[in-house]
Amino acid sequence: MNASLLESIRTRFSVRKFDGRCVDREILQICLEAARLAPSAENSQPWRFLILDDPETIRSFGRSAFSGIYSLTGWAASAPVLIVLLAEPDLIAGRIGKWIQRLPFYLLDMGIAGTHLVLQAQSLGLGTCWIGWFDLRKTRKFFGLPKGIKVCGMIALGYPQPGQPVRKRSRKPLEELCRFNSWK
Amino acid sequence: MNASLLESIRTRFSVRKFDGRCVDREILQICLEAARLAPSAENSQPWRFLILDDPETIRSFGRSAFSGIYSLTGWAASAPVLIVLLAEPDLIAGRIGKWIQRLPFYLLDMGIAGTHLVLQAQSLGLGTCWIGWFDLRKTRKFFGLPKGIKVCGMIALGYPQPGQPVRKRSRKPLEELCRFNSWK
Repeated sequence: MNASLLESIRTRFSVRKFDGRCVDREILQICLEAARLAPSAENSQPWRFLILDDPETIRSFGRSAFSGIYSLTGWAASAPVLIVLLAEPDLIAGRIGKWIQRLPFYLLDMGIAGTHLVLQAQSLGLGTCWIGWFDLRKTRKFFGLPKGIKVCGMIALGYPQPGQPVRKRSRKPLEELCRFNSWK
Repeated sequence: MNASLLESIRTRFSVRKFDGRCVDREILQICLEAARLAPSAENSQPWRFLILDDPETIRSFGRSAFSGIYSLTGWAASAPVLIVLLAEPDLIAGRIGKWIQRLPFYLLDMGIAGTHLVLQAQSLGLGTCWIGWFDLRKTRKFFGLPKGIKVCGMIALGYPQPGQPVRKRSRKPLEELCRFNSWK
């Protein structure tokens, strides 16, 4: 069905340098479609995607969101596309989920949909990087986001600059991450 | 690279009926390996996977976790494998992320790793279903989970019962989910 998925997952790396090419809206639509088809708690579909592909908007937003202690992430303003991951949690999956289960399910849902987008982008030759380090308050202000909309992160996206050394990513061994049938 | 990914995503559905076959540990390892290779905030790797594949453990756990108002999810106790998604957030991605960004990043990370697992399982002919509706308190108690471990959900996994009608899943149109360069 999809024999090379594990290979894609193995070779994926966070891309922070892009080759300067624009990304066609048609290509973006395919990535967004993969995200749209993601499952979500009670099919609540809390995801909202604010896609920045206008260079001037990205520069201007970058000066705001990646300033001060957030300047570490300044590289992201050189991506041809920034996707701001927003959520509009509904009553069931958002509030009841949080009250009863103490879990804001919509964050899991954002992780699921974002992964569909990231893997789909990779399969089209694009590189991506999840971003969690940016000025949340200034992001809200820049776009005038209403109260019911949660900012959950960003994904930078573009064609990778060739010749980037693929960093060998360290991971804990499976034995440390997994237990079978008992926690003890 | 992975041309059929969108097709996999299109044809995925939540599987709640299984054909009774066991799932070999070797197959499970491949799915877990896909999850292990997932990116996470600051490479913090907060995921811990508690895999239930012993039928008696699943039955006994099911009587506890899927009782009362949670009996809607009772079908999950008939899955050959239940993977309890746990997180052990570290200082940076867990606490500082929550303080500064007001986002428990580890939930995004759990969504990302879980999606790797789910898509990998599908590519091996397995069916899965995310589960968020279960007795959290009884789950903690059943396994004697320590305080630093968060329960984030479960994934039921097994070979799908053949002949299940694939439900046409409704989704909001992309136009409703996406905006370009401005929220207004």
